[in-house]
Amino acid sequence: MIDYRAFASAAFNEDVGPGDLTTEATIPVEIVGAGGVLAKQDLVVCGQDLAAAFFEVVGRRYGAVAHYEPLVPDGTRVEEGTYIASVKGSLRVIVVAERPALNCLMKLCGIATHTRTFVDVAGEGLRVVDTRKTTPLWRDLEKYAVRCGGAHNHRRGLYDGVMVKDNHISAVGSLTKAVSLVRASVHHLVRIEVEARTLAEVDEALATDAEVILLDNMDDEMLRKAVSKARGARPVVLEASGNMDAERVARLAEIGVDVVSAGGLIHQARWVDLSLKVSR
Amino acid sequence: MIDYRAFASAAFNEDVGPGDLTTEATIPVEIVGAGGVLAKQDLVVCGQDLAAAFFEVVGRRYGAVAHYEPLVPDGTRVEEGTYIASVKGSLRVIVVAERPALNCLMKLCGIATHTRTFVDVAGEGLRVVDTRKTTPLWRDLEKYAVRCGGAHNHRRGLYDGVMVKDNHISAVGSLTKAVSLVRASVHHLVRIEVEARTLAEVDEALATDAEVILLDNMDDEMLRKAVSKARGARPVVLEASGNMDAERVARLAEIGVDVVSAGGLIHQARWVDLSLKVSR
Amino acid sequence: MIDYRAFASAAFNEDVGPGDLTTEATIPVEIVGAGGVLAKQDLVVCGQDLAAAFFEVVGRRYGAVAHYEPLVPDGTRVEEGTYIASVKGSLRVIVVAERPALNCLMKLCGIATHTRTFVDVAGEGLRVVDTRKTTPLWRDLEKYAVRCGGAHNHRRGLYDGVMVKDNHISAVGSLTKAVSLVRASVHHLVRIEVEARTLAEVDEALATDAEVILLDNMDDEMLRKAVSKARGARPVVLEASGNMDAERVARLAEIGVDVVSAGGLIHQARWVDLSLKVSR
Amino acid sequence: MIDYRAFASAAFNEDVGPGDLTTEATIPVEIVGAGGVLAKQDLVVCGQDLAAAFFEVVGRRYGAVAHYEPLVPDGTRVEEGTYIASVKGSLRVIVVAERPALNCLMKLCGIATHTRTFVDVAGEGLRVVDTRKTTPLWRDLEKYAVRCGGAHNHRRGLYDGVMVKDNHISAVGSLTKAVSLVRASVHHLVRIEVEARTLAEVDEALATDAEVILLDNMDDEMLRKAVSKARGARPVVLEASGNMDAERVARLAEIGVDVVSAGGLIHQARWVDLSLKVSR
Amino acid sequence: MIDYRAFASAAFNEDVGPGDLTTEATIPVEIVGAGGVLAKQDLVVCGQDLAAAFFEVVGRRYGAVAHYEPLVPDGTRVEEGTYIASVKGSLRVIVVAERPALNCLMKLCGIATHTRTFVDVAGEGLRVVDTRKTTPLWRDLEKYAVRCGGAHNHRRGLYDGVMVKDNHISAVGSLTKAVSLVRASVHHLVRIEVEARTLAEVDEALATDAEVILLDNMDDEMLRKAVSKARGARPVVLEASGNMDAERVARLAEIGVDVVSAGGLIHQARWVDLSLKVSR
Amino acid sequence: MIDYRAFASAAFNEDVGPGDLTTEATIPVEIVGAGGVLAKQDLVVCGQDLAAAFFEVVGRRYGAVAHYEPLVPDGTRVEEGTYIASVKGSLRVIVVAERPALNCLMKLCGIATHTRTFVDVAGEGLRVVDTRKTTPLWRDLEKYAVRCGGAHNHRRGLYDGVMVKDNHISAVGSLTKAVSLVRASVHHLVRIEVEARTLAEVDEALATDAEVILLDNMDDEMLRKAVSKARGARPVVLEASGNMDAERVARLAEIGVDVVSAGGLIHQARWVDLSLKVSR
Repeated sequence: MIDYRAFASAAFNEDVGPGDLTTEATIPVEIVGAGGVLAKQDLVVCGQDLAAAFFEVVGRRYGAVAHYEPLVPDGTRVEEGTYIASVKGSLRVIVVAERPALNCLMKLCGIATHTRTFVDVAGEGLRVVDTRKTTPLWRDLEKYAVRCGGAHNHRRGLYDGVMVKDNHISAVGSLTKAVSLVRASVHHLVRIEVEARTLAEVDEALATDAEVILLDNMDDEMLRKAVSKARGARPVVLEASGNMDAERVARLAEIGVDVVSAGGLIHQARWVDLSLKVSR
Repeated sequence: MIDYRAFASAAFNEDVGPGDLTTEATIPVEIVGAGGVLAKQDLVVCGQDLAAAFFEVVGRRYGAVAHYEPLVPDGTRVEEGTYIASVKGSLRVIVVAERPALNCLMKLCGIATHTRTFVDVAGEGLRVVDTRKTTPLWRDLEKYAVRCGGAHNHRRGLYDGVMVKDNHISAVGSLTKAVSLVRASVHHLVRIEVEARTLAEVDEALATDAEVILLDNMDDEMLRKAVSKARGARPVVLEASGNMDAERVARLAEIGVDVVSAGGLIHQARWVDLSLKVSR
Repeated sequence: MIDYRAFASAAFNEDVGPGDLTTEATIPVEIVGAGGVLAKQDLVVCGQDLAAAFFEVVGRRYGAVAHYEPLVPDGTRVEEGTYIASVKGSLRVIVVAERPALNCLMKLCGIATHTRTFVDVAGEGLRVVDTRKTTPLWRDLEKYAVRCGGAHNHRRGLYDGVMVKDNHISAVGSLTKAVSLVRASVHHLVRIEVEARTLAEVDEALATDAEVILLDNMDDEMLRKAVSKARGARPVVLEASGNMDAERVARLAEIGVDVVSAGGLIHQARWVDLSLKVSR
Repeated sequence: MIDYRAFASAAFNEDVGPGDLTTEATIPVEIVGAGGVLAKQDLVVCGQDLAAAFFEVVGRRYGAVAHYEPLVPDGTRVEEGTYIASVKGSLRVIVVAERPALNCLMKLCGIATHTRTFVDVAGEGLRVVDTRKTTPLWRDLEKYAVRCGGAHNHRRGLYDGVMVKDNHISAVGSLTKAVSLVRASVHHLVRIEVEARTLAEVDEALATDAEVILLDNMDDEMLRKAVSKARGARPVVLEASGNMDAERVARLAEIGVDVVSAGGLIHQARWVDLSLKVSR
Repeated sequence: MIDYRAFASAAFNEDVGPGDLTTEATIPVEIVGAGGVLAKQDLVVCGQDLAAAFFEVVGRRYGAVAHYEPLVPDGTRVEEGTYIASVKGSLRVIVVAERPALNCLMKLCGIATHTRTFVDVAGEGLRVVDTRKTTPLWRDLEKYAVRCGGAHNHRRGLYDGVMVKDNHISAVGSLTKAVSLVRASVHHLVRIEVEARTLAEVDEALATDAEVILLDNMDDEMLRKAVSKARGARPVVLEASGNMDAERVARLAEIGVDVVSAGGLIHQARWVDLSLKVSR
Repeated sequence: MIDYRAFASAAFNEDVGPGDLTTEATIPVEIVGAGGVLAKQDLVVCGQDLAAAFFEVVGRRYGAVAHYEPLVPDGTRVEEGTYIASVKGSLRVIVVAERPALNCLMKLCGIATHTRTFVDVAGEGLRVVDTRKTTPLWRDLEKYAVRCGGAHNHRRGLYDGVMVKDNHISAVGSLTKAVSLVRASVHHLVRIEVEARTLAEVDEALATDAEVILLDNMDDEMLRKAVSKARGARPVVLEASGNMDAERVARLAEIGVDVVSAGGLIHQARWVDLSLKVSR
């Protein structure tokens, strides 16, 4: 439930500042134009509502109207050469809205497209999720792009899920005590995840009531042992993390973890190539 | 002159929301810790002031103090294994500030590092610049990272430089008329750049008083001809653009253009790998 | 992790608008005074940091200094006649900060004090929690006051915990389907609570993997049956709700539910009586 | 002239944060529903425009529409069992807007209802007014609720009326001097009120040109004497204050004061009981 | 009680936008300088705190320090050639803060100086006041400048004083009814002013309990008659208005009105001439 | 591309604060009225869109509608007695919007009208421009008024044009070095202007590649010499400044400078006289 208008308004202001020197001098607000957004590579679509918001925001500022009409919904795979949206209305609005709208689309489609490559190899039983390694001020949008790419989200931030890590453990003295302190503190709709880096820590985590164990930076062999321990002990969600790439994700399903988290879904994605072709 | 505190404050709020469930339950604000930010790859440093602002902002919110001390200035190339900063103070502040501060550093160092690969091959006479293809809400920061990588900036936005493109030209009827309309409209400290895609357009642009010509999407041969025409005509700044990579940049200096613009300095950069190691 | 300065600044602006007509005409900023905040009834203290923020904010606006010094920490029970804080510094600042600071203290202590009456009868095994029935714009502060009164919080809002209610169930067709849809949608650190109003619904809820069941508006007898069913079925957190008062809370521990939620902790609380006595 | 949309937007954000985990997973935006707001006790209605604003704000955010239609105007007394409003439109919007809208209605109706009990006993000649003891960030709304309950408002804040109290008097040396300093300072459309706690202070106040005298914390006998003095001296508005309850208000009209101020109209009010019944 | 930092921050952002191209390229932040603000004409000083705030705000943004030290307080008349302030510190901060700080000083001193010419001829018994004809977003500052010029303020806005004008009267049917409706509506610390344009209206106004009568656009003769009527009737404040200049103000004291209001104090004032001389 | 709604909203809030005491008590929102804005002197129109925005903003806040319809476009000269706009709709909205709307119109028309007197004598070849001496928070509006008066703008702020002044030069040691430092730093669409106060400085400036030279505070004779030097040297834009009035501007065209800048276009302008006549 992102406030697309607010985001588009801030992004538009950043680009246009006190005015577009070129366009305001050459394109009267009443000239109309039309065009389309062209995918110049295979990609997964993401960002249609945000793109549309730019045209609304810019139009409102200029007292004119241009519409952005999605031709395929977010989450769709399209091939190079597909028009993913059409635009129509005041040419000035279209020309001014173009760059920030495309910047958003190219970035978000980039993440959805990159994420898709992970999801495609993960199979049914393995949930691919993102991390808190997101572009500051873009978290909700990037997490949405991850969903468009077919993956799931991890917690949104520090406030809606517990992750007990080494710093927390060392501050209170033991993993067990850390979990128990947090349990007493948080509300009863929050699950606790605890990080384990060794099999001993897996044992210790299993002895708590933490619902999720993060198996961090373990090689395949250690992962297998950890999974085996956990499955023999009690119901628990097992998450693997640490420099994941698509190849390794493919093996993790077989190893038997439930979740794999990869910051790279977002921060290793590059923008896809889109262009807006306009004619009067 | 970026307002780092304001940016850090917004980014911190995005991550922490109404509070850090884990850390506030386990790490009292008065426990102290220390650590350092480690480069896990070769990179160009960028973002030290912003990173420091996170520690100030988080500290102020918790009524505690932790300092981020840069060990090398922005713009420095460092090797894998170098500590680029030290942190010291309230462990809670350090643990909470870590993720958003690193997210910024990893992104900005990524751009500076990627940009450096372009600048290194461009040589003295060729100015490498960015474009308006920047992450919305990050423009000033990303343009700063480009400078840390040794390159220059193009105009910041639509308001501080003129770029006459095909849509503007077609709206008024001719390149010549577009340039003249804009000249009459803008203040006298603004230069005009006009886009040319063919040699005929180069001729037409040279016949105006535009100070800069953008040679867009030309191959090397056409570029050479355009340069030759322009040098024989009048003083003018020549800028080349269109899917630039480092290899091509290396040739452009020899061809004789003055400026090469590449959006990819920013949008094809990936985050570098940094980690914050903390101990009590 | 509430931003007390921001809250105090907004609340101060509401009261002072463009200026204090009376005080600015009569009390020069350099006259000093001192005083204390007196409890005029038995109460549980809450709001010391927020109160202090008012004196800081007002002082900064007038270019003068007055300090608010808590004499007992939040969460303490004090008797009528106790001074809970002292103030010292610019008399103008003290006089202007007094009303909004006391308004906050009287309201927050009121909630903490009222909450305490529930907690005192609940005993060890029963967790008393609040609901989303909070004063808009005051949620974090009121939930903090509930903790100062010795109780716990429920989820903060719609974003950090799942509560499946009748509207959700009827929209998808069945309780079972609703739980399963939500499980697929939310991240893996979120627990699901589902509302049950009949024993049949308790059965249905027990057949899902919802971690928490809300036993809503059941009388003691039905509650006993629901508890019995659940304890015989699987591990699950049982929460009772519906027009709770202290008397009934006392019985719930014995009935065996884990959690009791009561909006009245907050919305049936009244302000306590405090006064600020100042002398030059 | 409260900005209801702005208030509703802030209050909605507080509750929904980055999204409603439950509703967004279960209720598609295009399903429609209808329902009504039911008074579960006798009450005085207040807050219809604010409640309506929530449905508008939530609808706009979800790109859907739900209308809140008041069935009785603010200020109306209704009996238990009355529907005070109907809602119709996107079920998702209704379900998400419900809680914050009801929280506002229950609080504001609570104040109006409680205030009504004072006004009913005060009779024609006595003006019942509130004080500056209001919930921070809610002043305009609470003062509006007081009017809906049939009472009047005192000054809104420190900026639109003068109240000379003991701290002001002691800072300048005398009541007389304080009034005269303020008169010289304020604009000529402001009246001055001065606090008197003894009959001697009443005499001193009557000797100034203060238009209003606050008879603070006097018992009935002293009030009678003060009224008698004042009526024999000059035209002046007499206000009584100090821990007022409805019983005492009934006596004050007979004693002959013009105004009675009671913070408790607001801070001793409790939420009324309302529920929103929805069906598809 | 103006928030000078907030105002200076907004005004600085307007001027500097994303950065000072010239100064940031030429003046390192650590070079220091000093200088003074020179009055290039006789004037009344106003704006010292606001000017100082610019140096604080700019310094904070650049991580450097420069101080603005007033040499004479606001409200002082100084002769051409007087230094009204000294500045010292980071040369970059001084150079960047100069223009917006001077813009404010020149404007505010201009109003104070112009106002002084009215006050000087008004004499003791006549209160010269401003109106609501102020520069939008500058009201509090301009009203402060009027006070620095020795005059007083009228109400600040529509919310802190009542002015019944012809539109209000015609909407309700009569002046008498309008006054009575407003009296019932406003709190008891508000005075009512009513506009009278004829002697008949003066009579009607005198028959109400309005505390102030505005004698609008009357010539001297009619004013004399109005004053005579009023003084024979009851205590009331008489205000004259309508295209006042200094010459006419001199006559009004003798005619016997209490207050003269003139929008021109503000909107007919011009900036005074100040310059900031800096040396390293 | 000014955000008129945002400006009008802020200006309206400043005036109305928590409400219009008089109008809300006397004019129900559903009474309608109509009227017109009358020019009470010859003037150049400016501010129609901003004026209209006030009626929209006030209407939206009161849930009512009143329209402001421009009768002549901005930039038009009209004679005394002309109606420049009509208004129609909710009388309450009209009465409340009147003052802030007129304040803006009177100020902006004042600047346009004053500017016109300069432009009328400047002739074709001389560009009259403003400076950075603008009313803080009003820069874009005032610069727009200057354009409505027939003149041009100088740079908007410190960020969109370079002006090398004495402080910059003395900080780096020489004019030549200052220009070269800035050139290396700024993007390639920015022109550089350098200030020259003596003929020697003109020579030095001509030896750089600065595109514009500011001839500051030179008398006519020195200006002639400077122009002669420059025209004999290289293409360059020559700007004259320093206490310009209309008489001197008339001579400058003949002397041969290209641009004359005058802060007085804005800060020496006075409000024009307009009134809004309304009837029910």
